[in-house]
Amino acid sequence: MPEQESISFTEARCPVPLSHNEKIVMGHGSGGKMSHDLIRRLFYRCFNNPILSVGDDAGVLDLENGGKLAFCTDSHTVLPLFFPGGDIGKLAVCGTVNDLAMVGAIPKALTTAFILEEGLDMTVLADVVASMQSAAEEAAVQIVAGDTKVVEKGKTDGMFISTSGIGVIPPGRNISGRNAQPGDIIILTGTMGDHGIAVLSARGQLGFESEVKSDVAPLAKMIEDVLRASSQVHVLRDPTRGGVATTLNEIAQQSNVGMVLQEGKLPIRPSVQAACEMLGFDALYLANEGKAIIIVGKEDAERVLEALSLSPYGKEAVIIGEVVKNPVRRVLMKTAYKSTRIVDMLAGEILPRIC
Amino acid sequence: MPEQESISFTEARCPVPLSHNEKIVMGHGSGGKMSHDLIRRLFYRCFNNPILSVGDDAGVLDLENGGKLAFCTDSHTVLPLFFPGGDIGKLAVCGTVNDLAMVGAIPKALTTAFILEEGLDMTVLADVVASMQSAAEEAAVQIVAGDTKVVEKGKTDGMFISTSGIGVIPPGRNISGRNAQPGDIIILTGTMGDHGIAVLSARGQLGFESEVKSDVAPLAKMIEDVLRASSQVHVLRDPTRGGVATTLNEIAQQSNVGMVLQEGKLPIRPSVQAACEMLGFDALYLANEGKAIIIVGKEDAERVLEALSLSPYGKEAVIIGEVVKNPVRRVLMKTAYKSTRIVDMLAGEILPRIC
Repeated sequence: MPEQESISFTEARCPVPLSHNEKIVMGHGSGGKMSHDLIRRLFYRCFNNPILSVGDDAGVLDLENGGKLAFCTDSHTVLPLFFPGGDIGKLAVCGTVNDLAMVGAIPKALTTAFILEEGLDMTVLADVVASMQSAAEEAAVQIVAGDTKVVEKGKTDGMFISTSGIGVIPPGRNISGRNAQPGDIIILTGTMGDHGIAVLSARGQLGFESEVKSDVAPLAKMIEDVLRASSQVHVLRDPTRGGVATTLNEIAQQSNVGMVLQEGKLPIRPSVQAACEMLGFDALYLANEGKAIIIVGKEDAERVLEALSLSPYGKEAVIIGEVVKNPVRRVLMKTAYKSTRIVDMLAGEILPRIC
Repeated sequence: MPEQESISFTEARCPVPLSHNEKIVMGHGSGGKMSHDLIRRLFYRCFNNPILSVGDDAGVLDLENGGKLAFCTDSHTVLPLFFPGGDIGKLAVCGTVNDLAMVGAIPKALTTAFILEEGLDMTVLADVVASMQSAAEEAAVQIVAGDTKVVEKGKTDGMFISTSGIGVIPPGRNISGRNAQPGDIIILTGTMGDHGIAVLSARGQLGFESEVKSDVAPLAKMIEDVLRASSQVHVLRDPTRGGVATTLNEIAQQSNVGMVLQEGKLPIRPSVQAACEMLGFDALYLANEGKAIIIVGKEDAERVLEALSLSPYGKEAVIIGEVVKNPVRRVLMKTAYKSTRIVDMLAGEILPRIC
């Protein structure tokens, strides 16, 4: 960085004590413990407001007419831009659509801001844009505003895309990571880790051939069908960066509950399992881009599974565990050998630039 | 870029014919002719929808209750991160607040997505975040959702910030670049080029000392006061990248009108004028981040100027010209020597990474 940056002209001061020795590291973008630490220490305290501090995938605003609006954003820095099953454009649109769906909103409109690298092939941009439009059409949203910046060669890897979205939450819905209750059932809508392994494969980092495709998909329609089938859905969350393990820990903290997972029930493709074993990864921590965790009152679990079975993105949905009382908000796993282990949040960073 | 990027896995195809020989260049991010060409050729055609194609600073959506919502986005890549009068955080919040104000919306909420460089001092991030919050408070908006990604050292210059915003447009308002009418008066709310020269100065590229500060400011309150003072405001637009000249050309094209400016009326600080003369810049093309162009029915021009005079950001507002009939949508300038010259859009790029 240029040395000017150490000269701050900013008069506003953040109420958070920080030392110059503390640096941003890749782990701050992992979605795991370090990301949460940064969010809690800096963003929640500086941007201090009750909407942000809920900690769900989108901020929920009360409209003057009594309705509710969801509003969310994500930047995308995935490398490479194209990978089996998707690309940065599809990822950007699906990620935003899914964040809206995860607070029970029906997505209405997106914006997109491109940071392009000087020298990028115009056809690469056109392919990404076409892919965004295709995903937007599937999700029944329009891209209503945008922005384009260009930075010097080397200052991105082709492009970064930031997308934001708004959606309308129908009256009476109250979906939040705060709402899990002891006795609730935890459903995962499909296999774990497909996206993470597909991106690694596209980078040539697997060291062997793999046919794993990213699961990147817009889930809004499937989620809407689930919410129409059951009024007992308490929590929705897509296990992206940090994977299923980190997402469940987030919910446990937000809701002040514990969880018990059944190891034998966790869905994983054999090819993903094989890649994980060779590379020493735990699929519980790998990113998914077309999956949801659904926490539902016990009596409606079957009803939700039935609704999911009608969607191409929910056919492999299974119950993976349940919510329990636990004052220290632990996520526990019953292993195949009947022992119990603690499933913690992701520490550090295992796969940078995955989304 | 890694070679994988030439292998597209995307099945969707853009309806725009492009050749592999065509590359993204810095001018595509200038806000001038090349930006407009990219937007018209690629984004409007691929994302094809009537809200985007209006071409205003924010997309305007009809709400189910008859209200209107404005939704906008911008990425910020300014270099350096801190400059006299502001920083990337203040710029991001003000840019988004102003884009909402320019369609007549009252800003309600923002989101922010950070792309951080590995190794960034945490105190630099904290200063930027504090500055964002300070600008958000002045503009009476909350930052309700966010995202953080981290990329490897060298892949940004400290950070990029993408902000998005939503605002509510009160019933009966119809502000758009399409609404300029022959006979309307063109008001500029203050001096030209302060932001551009302040950033150059912070880069050490002026070659001499300068006390010029960026004009970066949230204009929503001032604009709201103007709109309450007059119902004859037809167009609002902030002349950021590409400057006053490019912005007026945009409006002329959207409204199918011509414009005649009076060179002697164009407000410019002596220090900015001096810098422009030394560097060979025309201040008409320099970026402003705290100014608005207001096009208003002749009968209300004085009323608007009076409202502007009450704001710290509008004290130097002046009439710079008027809207005329012109089938070829030209912006003309009456010079001090009584001759007339054509004022075109910015061609190419004069100051990259200015916002």
